Amino acid sequence: MSDRAQLGYAKTMSAAEQKTSEYTPYAAGIDIGGTKTLVGLADRAGNVKIHRQFPTNPESDPEAHLLKAVEALNLCLGALGADIKSLIGIGVNVPGLADPSAGKLVFAPFLGWRNVNVRSFLQEKWPEIPVEVANDVNACAGGEQKFGKGKYYDSFLWVTISTGIGGGLVINNEVVAGEHQLAGEIGHVMVDWDKGLPCGCGNNGCLEAHASGTAITRAAATVIRNEPESSLARFFKNGQRELSAESLANAARQGVPEAIDIYEQAGTYLGRAFSYCINIFNPGAIIIGGGVSLSFDLYESAIRRIVTEGVIDDCNKTIPIITTGLGYQAALVGAASLVMG
Amino acid sequence: MSDRAQLGYAKTMSAAEQKTSEYTPYAAGIDIGGTKTLVGLADRAGNVKIHRQFPTNPESDPEAHLLKAVEALNLCLGALGADIKSLIGIGVNVPGLADPSAGKLVFAPFLGWRNVNVRSFLQEKWPEIPVEVANDVNACAGGEQKFGKGKYYDSFLWVTISTGIGGGLVINNEVVAGEHQLAGEIGHVMVDWDKGLPCGCGNNGCLEAHASGTAITRAAATVIRNEPESSLARFFKNGQRELSAESLANAARQGVPEAIDIYEQAGTYLGRAFSYCINIFNPGAIIIGGGVSLSFDLYESAIRRIVTEGVIDDCNKTIPIITTGLGYQAALVGAASLVMG
Repeated sequence: MSDRAQLGYAKTMSAAEQKTSEYTPYAAGIDIGGTKTLVGLADRAGNVKIHRQFPTNPESDPEAHLLKAVEALNLCLGALGADIKSLIGIGVNVPGLADPSAGKLVFAPFLGWRNVNVRSFLQEKWPEIPVEVANDVNACAGGEQKFGKGKYYDSFLWVTISTGIGGGLVINNEVVAGEHQLAGEIGHVMVDWDKGLPCGCGNNGCLEAHASGTAITRAAATVIRNEPESSLARFFKNGQRELSAESLANAARQGVPEAIDIYEQAGTYLGRAFSYCINIFNPGAIIIGGGVSLSFDLYESAIRRIVTEGVIDDCNKTIPIITTGLGYQAALVGAASLVMG
Repeated sequence: MSDRAQLGYAKTMSAAEQKTSEYTPYAAGIDIGGTKTLVGLADRAGNVKIHRQFPTNPESDPEAHLLKAVEALNLCLGALGADIKSLIGIGVNVPGLADPSAGKLVFAPFLGWRNVNVRSFLQEKWPEIPVEVANDVNACAGGEQKFGKGKYYDSFLWVTISTGIGGGLVINNEVVAGEHQLAGEIGHVMVDWDKGLPCGCGNNGCLEAHASGTAITRAAATVIRNEPESSLARFFKNGQRELSAESLANAARQGVPEAIDIYEQAGTYLGRAFSYCINIFNPGAIIIGGGVSLSFDLYESAIRRIVTEGVIDDCNKTIPIITTGLGYQAALVGAASLVMG
């Protein structure tokens, strides 16, 4: 709404002003993931009104990739009969280290991209549009805080369980950045000091190496390969049927004991890492998102058992451990939320 | 200084007003520990100008104990030629759960004290003096942030290693309370999931059970008892010489191998717990206080080795891990700092 309309002058507006006053404000989100990029528009209540998706190609030039996102964003605006004037701003998630104050992607390990000036690139196209850049998991935490179940807690831990595992800390309603923008690395806390599996980060025994989607399917693949007579190998037709965290969850739900065990083992390790966080910063809740959160029923009780063993104080033992209500689009809502004060 | 003096009317002040204007402001600190209570006065720069000490008697009525602290405080004021008008306020540390907003001690497990209205009790004596109450370890973290090495970091972890182990988180220059005033329980994060020793909290494998002053002397006592021919048993004359964290440190410094091993083992466990904190909230430093911090040289390299193994990113691997510069009086400075905005 224009200032004049806000002041009660709506009746005296020109036709052009009336058109301006009809713009619905949207926050744009660009969620650059390791395998796909989502672009969408959310209203002020955090509802995604439209979105488009295209693959993230690590071989691609980062600026060419951002140009594709700009095209997708224009298509989204067009589909809603809106244009760039409708934009409150553009929030961009990057899958790695971000420098929010400079509006830069610092380093995205999986993509191999370094020092991409996201804000200045987008503002070359649209000079007056605010652009915010954040680490994708921190953006999810912020989106959950503003529009998800996080709004009920002053402090919570956000955890994305997907290909890898990332975390975001919200303390007193603010996402904690850390001294070097590295806070929330729950995927790399040690959950097994003695027989830890190797992690992509170079250490052994990290949570990510034991409980990510990748770790879960790797554990299943080992059983299928080494125990061809097992129920799990038979379920997956000895490797003929596609193995993923999702298909393994289906196996567990159909009673395949090795699949149940693998999910419970992952829950045990998640419980260990959660117990550290709970004791250290006493959050009001732990909220889980990412693809593997869709199988939460398969590992919730293991998490709860270990958390009960591993934390001090009854308040901590009964902490809510829940999944995001924002679903598949949590990261896109998180990106859009970056420009919604 | 009186309001009139601040307004530039010093020359017209009465003799009584002139006397008032000469008061040096002091912050009082009352540090109620599990075994002793320290009472003192600090100037605005956090320097303790005078202090007194008396035993904390768990059998004592909490209000009778506070009365003794009031007497000690009056003696401190008298010794400096000051009186109650000099006081900026009184900060009180309690060895347990505090409710800072209500000014209450909620529960001090070691003393068995519950629901002590510290603020209202002290304000009955001195109605106009601000009184703040905090958990002792959180107060230490705050004192370190205002007056110690913590002032060089926006975020740090404070760790007290003493009879037990406690922690305080400072994030963006604020001590983090947590959802139930329970943040900072680093003494109760698990450092050994498989063969953990029993902890006073009821769990097994907590840091406190493996690396506190109590744990260190317990480990030494076991060696002395079970290996009477060992260098350690000989050093302690098979139990005839007093065993403490301090005397064990002396043994280690004199080259007794079992004493060296015990301190290094404690460092290993401290490194595990620190690695969790570093990955989770990426502090600028870890600052250690408490009696066992005096033996930091004996376990520093073990901490550093494990932290290097257990954290992601070079920034985290090289985090400063240092001891408090406030020494023995860190907790008293922390208490006084509670009333120094």
